[in-house]
Amino acid sequence: MSGRAPEHPMPRRDYGGDLPYAGPGPTFAHVPLVLEPADLAGADVVVIGAPLDQATSYRPGARFGPRAIRDADIVGPPAARPNLALGVDPLAVLRVVDHGDVGSYPNTVESLHAELRTALGHVLDAGAVPVVLGGDHSVALPMAQALSARFGAHGFAVAHFDAHGDVELETDVLDHGNPFSTAIAQGHLSAANKVAIGVRGYWPTAPDELAYWGARGLRTVIMDEVVERGLGAVLDEVIERLQSRAPRVYLSVDMDVLDPAFAPGTGTPEPGGLATRELLLAVRRLARELDICALDVVEVNPMIDVAGITAGAAHAVVLEALGGMAARSTL
Amino acid sequence: MSGRAPEHPMPRRDYGGDLPYAGPGPTFAHVPLVLEPADLAGADVVVIGAPLDQATSYRPGARFGPRAIRDADIVGPPAARPNLALGVDPLAVLRVVDHGDVGSYPNTVESLHAELRTALGHVLDAGAVPVVLGGDHSVALPMAQALSARFGAHGFAVAHFDAHGDVELETDVLDHGNPFSTAIAQGHLSAANKVAIGVRGYWPTAPDELAYWGARGLRTVIMDEVVERGLGAVLDEVIERLQSRAPRVYLSVDMDVLDPAFAPGTGTPEPGGLATRELLLAVRRLARELDICALDVVEVNPMIDVAGITAGAAHAVVLEALGGMAARSTL
Amino acid sequence: MSGRAPEHPMPRRDYGGDLPYAGPGPTFAHVPLVLEPADLAGADVVVIGAPLDQATSYRPGARFGPRAIRDADIVGPPAARPNLALGVDPLAVLRVVDHGDVGSYPNTVESLHAELRTALGHVLDAGAVPVVLGGDHSVALPMAQALSARFGAHGFAVAHFDAHGDVELETDVLDHGNPFSTAIAQGHLSAANKVAIGVRGYWPTAPDELAYWGARGLRTVIMDEVVERGLGAVLDEVIERLQSRAPRVYLSVDMDVLDPAFAPGTGTPEPGGLATRELLLAVRRLARELDICALDVVEVNPMIDVAGITAGAAHAVVLEALGGMAARSTL
Amino acid sequence: MSGRAPEHPMPRRDYGGDLPYAGPGPTFAHVPLVLEPADLAGADVVVIGAPLDQATSYRPGARFGPRAIRDADIVGPPAARPNLALGVDPLAVLRVVDHGDVGSYPNTVESLHAELRTALGHVLDAGAVPVVLGGDHSVALPMAQALSARFGAHGFAVAHFDAHGDVELETDVLDHGNPFSTAIAQGHLSAANKVAIGVRGYWPTAPDELAYWGARGLRTVIMDEVVERGLGAVLDEVIERLQSRAPRVYLSVDMDVLDPAFAPGTGTPEPGGLATRELLLAVRRLARELDICALDVVEVNPMIDVAGITAGAAHAVVLEALGGMAARSTL
Amino acid sequence: MSGRAPEHPMPRRDYGGDLPYAGPGPTFAHVPLVLEPADLAGADVVVIGAPLDQATSYRPGARFGPRAIRDADIVGPPAARPNLALGVDPLAVLRVVDHGDVGSYPNTVESLHAELRTALGHVLDAGAVPVVLGGDHSVALPMAQALSARFGAHGFAVAHFDAHGDVELETDVLDHGNPFSTAIAQGHLSAANKVAIGVRGYWPTAPDELAYWGARGLRTVIMDEVVERGLGAVLDEVIERLQSRAPRVYLSVDMDVLDPAFAPGTGTPEPGGLATRELLLAVRRLARELDICALDVVEVNPMIDVAGITAGAAHAVVLEALGGMAARSTL
Amino acid sequence: MSGRAPEHPMPRRDYGGDLPYAGPGPTFAHVPLVLEPADLAGADVVVIGAPLDQATSYRPGARFGPRAIRDADIVGPPAARPNLALGVDPLAVLRVVDHGDVGSYPNTVESLHAELRTALGHVLDAGAVPVVLGGDHSVALPMAQALSARFGAHGFAVAHFDAHGDVELETDVLDHGNPFSTAIAQGHLSAANKVAIGVRGYWPTAPDELAYWGARGLRTVIMDEVVERGLGAVLDEVIERLQSRAPRVYLSVDMDVLDPAFAPGTGTPEPGGLATRELLLAVRRLARELDICALDVVEVNPMIDVAGITAGAAHAVVLEALGGMAARSTL
Repeated sequence: MSGRAPEHPMPRRDYGGDLPYAGPGPTFAHVPLVLEPADLAGADVVVIGAPLDQATSYRPGARFGPRAIRDADIVGPPAARPNLALGVDPLAVLRVVDHGDVGSYPNTVESLHAELRTALGHVLDAGAVPVVLGGDHSVALPMAQALSARFGAHGFAVAHFDAHGDVELETDVLDHGNPFSTAIAQGHLSAANKVAIGVRGYWPTAPDELAYWGARGLRTVIMDEVVERGLGAVLDEVIERLQSRAPRVYLSVDMDVLDPAFAPGTGTPEPGGLATRELLLAVRRLARELDICALDVVEVNPMIDVAGITAGAAHAVVLEALGGMAARSTL
Repeated sequence: MSGRAPEHPMPRRDYGGDLPYAGPGPTFAHVPLVLEPADLAGADVVVIGAPLDQATSYRPGARFGPRAIRDADIVGPPAARPNLALGVDPLAVLRVVDHGDVGSYPNTVESLHAELRTALGHVLDAGAVPVVLGGDHSVALPMAQALSARFGAHGFAVAHFDAHGDVELETDVLDHGNPFSTAIAQGHLSAANKVAIGVRGYWPTAPDELAYWGARGLRTVIMDEVVERGLGAVLDEVIERLQSRAPRVYLSVDMDVLDPAFAPGTGTPEPGGLATRELLLAVRRLARELDICALDVVEVNPMIDVAGITAGAAHAVVLEALGGMAARSTL
Repeated sequence: MSGRAPEHPMPRRDYGGDLPYAGPGPTFAHVPLVLEPADLAGADVVVIGAPLDQATSYRPGARFGPRAIRDADIVGPPAARPNLALGVDPLAVLRVVDHGDVGSYPNTVESLHAELRTALGHVLDAGAVPVVLGGDHSVALPMAQALSARFGAHGFAVAHFDAHGDVELETDVLDHGNPFSTAIAQGHLSAANKVAIGVRGYWPTAPDELAYWGARGLRTVIMDEVVERGLGAVLDEVIERLQSRAPRVYLSVDMDVLDPAFAPGTGTPEPGGLATRELLLAVRRLARELDICALDVVEVNPMIDVAGITAGAAHAVVLEALGGMAARSTL
Repeated sequence: MSGRAPEHPMPRRDYGGDLPYAGPGPTFAHVPLVLEPADLAGADVVVIGAPLDQATSYRPGARFGPRAIRDADIVGPPAARPNLALGVDPLAVLRVVDHGDVGSYPNTVESLHAELRTALGHVLDAGAVPVVLGGDHSVALPMAQALSARFGAHGFAVAHFDAHGDVELETDVLDHGNPFSTAIAQGHLSAANKVAIGVRGYWPTAPDELAYWGARGLRTVIMDEVVERGLGAVLDEVIERLQSRAPRVYLSVDMDVLDPAFAPGTGTPEPGGLATRELLLAVRRLARELDICALDVVEVNPMIDVAGITAGAAHAVVLEALGGMAARSTL
Repeated sequence: MSGRAPEHPMPRRDYGGDLPYAGPGPTFAHVPLVLEPADLAGADVVVIGAPLDQATSYRPGARFGPRAIRDADIVGPPAARPNLALGVDPLAVLRVVDHGDVGSYPNTVESLHAELRTALGHVLDAGAVPVVLGGDHSVALPMAQALSARFGAHGFAVAHFDAHGDVELETDVLDHGNPFSTAIAQGHLSAANKVAIGVRGYWPTAPDELAYWGARGLRTVIMDEVVERGLGAVLDEVIERLQSRAPRVYLSVDMDVLDPAFAPGTGTPEPGGLATRELLLAVRRLARELDICALDVVEVNPMIDVAGITAGAAHAVVLEALGGMAARSTL
Repeated sequence: MSGRAPEHPMPRRDYGGDLPYAGPGPTFAHVPLVLEPADLAGADVVVIGAPLDQATSYRPGARFGPRAIRDADIVGPPAARPNLALGVDPLAVLRVVDHGDVGSYPNTVESLHAELRTALGHVLDAGAVPVVLGGDHSVALPMAQALSARFGAHGFAVAHFDAHGDVELETDVLDHGNPFSTAIAQGHLSAANKVAIGVRGYWPTAPDELAYWGARGLRTVIMDEVVERGLGAVLDEVIERLQSRAPRVYLSVDMDVLDPAFAPGTGTPEPGGLATRELLLAVRRLARELDICALDVVEVNPMIDVAGITAGAAHAVVLEALGGMAARSTL
C-alpha cells in the first residue's frame, strides 16, 4: 500500500446533492461503489458488508448493521474524512471503495459465509485490505479462512477487541462465540498469534477456555487487567507481541468491547467495558504501528441501538483505522 | 403512458445480493437509479426525494423521510411488486426509475424548492409522472409551479389527502401550511380545481380559510363528513368533480391524513383520521379512475416514527398509486 | 352556563412568542392561568391537573399525564380552537381557564385526593365545570364526592368510557379499579345513575361485579355490545338513560377505552377497543346532548406513550367535549 | 374435551404474591407449569413456547415472543380469565397448563423444530390441544407434521390468519415464508384443507403462488376481499368450507394479519390489515364453531414492539381462542 | 459462610432448554427457586425481589425492576457465573437461591414493606445473606429494621452508593429520600455507622442534611471528592471506617450513583456520576474486604431504561458482590 | 454582580403545588418568570430560550431544547439549588429570572435571531448575564452581536466547548457550523479571543479552518489534546489565555462536546467526547475563575434524546455555571 495521490477512476455514486441525508443510503463515507470483482484492481481498501446475525446467541438484529454503519455518516459528500489528530485524510491517501454487501437467499450462516469468503478472496487477490462491516462475529471464521488461504495460517496475527474471547471449545456448530476457535481447529489460525483485549462477563465456560487457550499461547487481556495496568501499557505489550508473531495483523473489533453505555446496540452486552474514546485511540494506534491486512467491525445491532450511538462509534472505528493505516503508509 | 412490456435499458443498481437489508440503502422498490436528466427519456414514472423540513411548524425531521420510505421496502430485489387486488405488477407495466434526491447546501426552503422545480421540469419534459417522496408539504408549491409550467394553471386538478387544508391565507412566508394557497396566489393553480379530504383539527384560522376558499370553489371534505357519508361516497363525488375540472390530476398525500395510530411519524398529527387500509383503497381507486400527472407522499418523519409504521404506509401508498396507474394503463 | 361573548379579564400567560413549542410548558390550549380560587369567579370551565398514579395497579407514570396533555397542543397561542364540524370555537363561547395542578408533598393518594376535593369545591362554587386531566382514575372518587356535595348524590349521573368498570367490590383500599364503587359505597353516587361503555378484558372478578351492580341498576356496555349494536345505537340508549336519571352528567373518559393502538400510553391496556375517531364523536355528541357538570380525561401515561399519540387524543377529547358544550350553550 | 370442573392436581407456581409484575416472569396466565411430559395427562390445553426466529427473512427478534406474550398478562394470579362476552372462564372449564419452551443449543431451525415436534407429540398423545406461542411462523411445519402423525394428513384443516400466504413454491430451504407449502410438499397437509385470511403485500412471487395453490383447492382470502365482503361473510364461508374438509381445525394466527398500527412488533409488516377487535372476534368465533385441535400465535417480535401492543394482542388472541373452545365444550 | 462445595438439594427450575430467552422469565442467574421459608435452611444467599415504587418522588416504574434484573441474564442455564478477575464462581462456592418477590394487593408502601420485613426475617433466621432487588430505595428501611432485629442497631454498618444521601430530615412520611434517616430516627441504625459515596445534585435541603448528619458521625463522600481523591483512596477510607464501626456491613447500591449515561433507567437521575466499571470494581472490593450481611441493588426502572443497560449493570453489581463474597469465603 | 441577599420582588410563578411534575412546564429551576423587559432591572442572570433549529445540518429538533432543559428539573419548587461542592446556592446569591423564549411566526433563522438580539440587548442593558438555552448553535451569532454592541468586539473572549469549531470559512449563509466565523467576519468578535475545546470528527473542511484561524490567533484544543494533556492542564491554559485577552468571557457550551453516550440528544454527534462529570467540573471552574458575561447551552435535541440524559446534563451545566458565578461573586 503506497501513499500515492488518489485517482478514483471508478464512477462516483452521487444522488445530485451533498446533504448527508439525501438520496438512497450511501456507500461507506461516500466512497465509490465498485460491485464487479474485476474492478477492484487498484484499490487499497475494500469495504464489504456482512449482513448476517443467524449465529447470534442472544439478541439478533446485526443483519442491519452494515447499512446502519454506512448511514451513520453525518458529513455527506465529498468522500474526504481528514483525521485531525493525525493530520491526514485517509480517503485521499488510500484508494478506498465500497464493494456492497454479500447477501443472497437463503440467508443461512453457511451460505453467507461462503459468499463472504469468495468476496474476500477477490479483495485479497487485488492486493487490497478488506474492511468487513458486521453483522455478527461469526464472520471472523471466513475472514481467517480467506487470510489463511492468502498468507498462510501463520502469516497473520489477530488483534481482537471484544467483551468475549470467541474461542469456545465446542466448535461443531459455528456461532458467534466460537469463530476463532473454529478457525484454529480448522488450521486457519495459530492460537499463539491471537490477542484479545477487554474480555469480561460471567460465562460458565470462559475459565476453561482461557486456561486451555492460554496454555497454547493465546493471550487474553481481561478488562480488569486493562483497568489495572492502563490501556497504554496493554497496547505496548500487544503491539510487541503481535509484531513478534507475524508480519501482518487482522484487526477484529467487536463493538461490545465498549461499555453498554457507549454501545447499547450490540447483541450480548457486558457491563464494565471501554469508553469510545479509548477504543478509537487504541484502534488508531494499532493501525499506525502494525501492518493491518484485514479489519472487521462487528456486532452493531441497530434494532436495539439508541440514537445511532453504536453505529456512529463503529463508523468512527473504521475511520480511525483507516487514518492509522494512511499515516503509516505516508511514513 | 402505454401498457407496453418493460424494457429497462437503464443500468440496474444491485449490491450483489437479494436480501432486503443488504447493501447501501436501496432505490425505491429497487427500480433503476437514473441520475442524469438526459437519461430519463422513456421513463413512465420518476421517483424523486425531497429531503426538506425547514418549512415545518412543529416537529421537524421529515428531511429523513425519502430515505425512510425507500428503506421501508421489506421485499428486496428484483423490482417486481405485483398488486394482488388489481392483478397487475406496476413495475412490469410501467417504466419506473428513481432519480435520487434533490439536496444541496445551503439546505434552505428556497434552494431546495428551486432544485426540485428544476428536477420536476426534467421529468415532465420527459413525459413522465413525477412521484415526490417528502419531506414537508411545502413541496406542493414547486410541484404546482412545475405542473402549471407544463400544463397550464388550469390544466390540472388536485386531489389532496390531508388533516390540514394547507391553504392558509397568509402566503408571504412559505411554510408547510400554505403551499396550495401560495400556488393559487401565484397563479399556478385554480382554487376550484382542488379538493381536500380528511381535514380536521382545531386551528384558529381554519374556519376563515375554509369559508374564503369555499367561496372560490375549493372543496374541503372534513373528516366528519368522511365518517358520516362514508369514504366511498366521498370518493364518488371527488372523482366526478375532478374529472369535470381538468384532464389530469395531481394526487397529493400528506400522511397525517391517517390517524396518529396509523401514522405516528408525522410532524403535526391530528387525532381522529383515516385508517391505513382506507387510504390505500382510496389512493388506488383515484389512480385507477383519474389520469394522474403527479404524485407526492409527504410528511413522513422517521425521527418520531414507530417501528417504521408511517414509512411503510407511505411506501404502500406509492405502490397502490402505481398499481392504479398501471391498471388504468392496461385498460 | 350562558353563551355570552368572552371577556377574559384574567391576565394572559404569554412567553413573548407564538410558536407552540416556545416558552415554559403551556396551560391547556393557552387559556389564562388562574391560580387563586377567588379569581375563578366568572369562569365557565376550569381545567385542573391531577398528577397522581399511586393508585395504579400495573404500569405507573400517569402523574406526568396532565403536563403531557397540555404539551400536546401543536397550535400555540392565541387561545382559539374552533371546531370545524360544529362551527363553533369553544374558547370564544366559554370562559375557560387553567387552574394549574394539585400536587404537594407528600404525594400520597390520600393527600392528593384531599387537595383535589378542595379545588373542585372552589370550581363548583364558582358555578364552573371542572375538567380534570389525569392522572389515574382514582380521581373519580374525589370528583364524585365534590359533585355529591354540590348537587346531591342523586343530582348527577355518570357517563363513563373505559375498558374497565372501575367498580370492584372490595373498596377498603382505594385504587384505580374501584373509585366508582367506593363512591357508591360512600353514598356519593347512585349505582343506577352510572353507565360504562367499552368494558372488556379478562379480570377474574369482573363477572361478579357486573352481576352485582347490574342488579342495582348500573349499566355496563361491554365492547362486544358496542361492536354488535353500533356505537350510535349505544349512545342513543345512553343519552336517554342518563337524561332520565339526573339533570346533569359527569363525563369520565379513561383513555384505555381506546384500543392500545390508539392509546399505547395507558397503564392497563386492553386489546380490542374503540378507535380515536369513534371516541371523539361520542364525546362530542354526549357533551352536546347532555348537560355536562364535570369532565375527566384520565390514565394518560407519557412514560409509555408513543409519539404523543395518547396525550394528543386526550387533548382532542377535551376539545371535543368543550366543543359540544359550547354548541349546546349557543342553542 | 368436557366441561367438568377444574381440579388442577399439578403444583401451582406462585411467588408469594398476587401482583402481575411480581416474581420471575409468569407462565401463561399463571396456569400451572408442567415440565414433565408424563405429567401432561389430564390436560385439555398445553401452552408451549417456540422461541425461534432463525427462519425470519426481515426483522428478527421473535425468539423473545413467547416470553413477551406471557409477560403481557396484566392481571396476575389467580389463573382465572373470564370472557365477558361468552360468559365463561376458559381456565375454569379447561385444564390449561404451560409446558415451558423448547429451546436448546445449538439454536438452529432444525434442532428447535425437532424439539418442538417431540413436545407436540407428547401433547397430542395426552389428548390435549397444543397452543404454540411464537416465534416465527416456520413452526407451522412441525405443527403440521405432528398433527399429520396424529390425525393423518387429511384429518385436519387449517384456518390461517396472516398477511402472507406462507406457501412459497420453493421449499428446499425452510423459512417463515413456506412452512405450509413445505408441509404440503412433504405430505403432511392437504392443500384443499387450508384457508388463509388477510393476505396482502407486494411480493414478486405471490401471484404465481396463489394461482398454483388455488388450482389445488387452497383458498386465499386477500385483505381486499375481507374489506369488500365484510369479515362476517368471509368467516361464514371459511367455517363452512373447513367443516366440509376435515373434522378438526388447526388455527394458525400470524400477528401480522393485523395492520402495523395494531401489531407494530412483527418482522414483516404489511400496511392495511385487520384491526385487533376484528381479529379477536374472528378467532373467538372460529374457536367456538369449529373443533380446534391446535393453535399457534406467532411472529410476535418484542424487539420492535411498542408499549407491548403486539404481545398484548397476541395474549388476547389466545384467551379468545380458549374462550371459544370453552364455550363450545359447555354446549 | 463457608466455602464448601455446593449441594443444591433444592429442585432446579428449568424449562427444558438452555437458551437464555426460553421459558417463563428466569430466577436470578437461574439459581433454584425456593418459595417456602422453611426450605431456606442451608442457603448462603437468598435473592428477594421488592417490586415497589410507590415511594418514588419523580419517575415511577421501579416496580418492574426485579423482573428486569432477572431477565438481564444473557447466559442462561446452568447456574454458573464464574468471575474472571477473581477466579471463582460464586454460584459454586455459595448456595444461592431465589425466594421470589414480595408483592400482594393492596400494593402500598406499608404493606409491601411489612411483607419484605417478614421475608428478611426468614432469611436472616436461616443464617443467609439477603440480596434485595429493587424497587425503590424505601426498602432500606425494612432492611435496616430486619438487620437491627437480628444484629442490633449497632451490629451492622452501611456502605451506601447513591447520588442521594437518602437521609432527609423529615421522616414522618416515608419516601425513597429518607429511608436511612427514618431508620436512624426509629433506632434501627447508628448514624455514625453509615457512609454514602457518590452523592451529588442540587436538592434544596441537602446542605442542611449533610451538616446535621455530619455532626452525628455520618460520612458522606460527594462525587466531587471521589473525583478529586480517586475512588481507590475513598474506598480505602470507607473500608477502614466501616470495619472500625461494626462487624458486618449492609451494602446498599442505588443504581443512580452511576452517571445517567450508564444508568438511564432510574427515577431520579443526577448527571456526573460513576462509570459502570468503577462501580463494579468498588462493589467487588467491598464485598471481598468486608463481611457483607445484606445487599440491595435498587432503583432500576425498566420503564425508562434503554436497551437494558441499567438492568444489566444491576445484574452485574449483584454478581460482583457475590464474587467478592465468594472470594472472601474461600480465603 | 454583587453577592447580596436575594430579594425577588418579582411575582413567583407557582401552580399550587411543590411536585416537580405538577403544573404547566416550569421556568428554569422554578425561578420567577419575568416577561417584560422593563422588569428585568435588578436581575443578575436572565435565562432566555431560543427554540430554533432551522440552521441545523443533520438531525433537527433542537427547537424543543429550551422546554426540555426546563422540564429536566427533578426537584421542583422552591427555587433553591445549592451546589454541594461549592457550598453555595446560586439562586440565593444571584437574582436569576426566566425571560421565557423568543419565538414568533414566521420561525426562520433570521427572524428568531432578530428577536434574540433584541432580548439580549434588554438583558445586557439591565446589567445582567444572559443564559441562552438552545436551540441550535447559530444563536452564537446574535449573542456575539449583542455582546459586541455592549462591550465592543474586543471587550469579551469566548470559551467554547464543542465537538465542532463552528468556524466554517463560508459564511454567506448562516448555519450552525459557522456562527463564530460569521461573527468574526462581521467584526463582532476577535479571532484571537476565542478558544474551542473538545473539537473532533472527520469534516472535510476542518483542517483548512483550523489552519486559517490558527494563523489568526484562534486556539482550538482538539479532543486528542484534551486526552493527552489532561483536562486540568488544558483548562489552566485556557483560563490564562482568556484572562489575557479580554476582561470578560462568553461561555458557549455545545452539548455535543460530550461523547454521544452522555449526550445522545444532539443533532451532529461525534464519537469520542468528554464525560459529563468532566464537563460539569470544567464549566464550574471557568465560571468561578473567569468573569462570565454570557452563557449558552445549546444543541439539546429532545427528539433523539434518551431518558432525558442530554437535557438533564444541560440543566446541570447551567447550574454549575451559576454555582461558579455565585462562588466568584461571594469571594
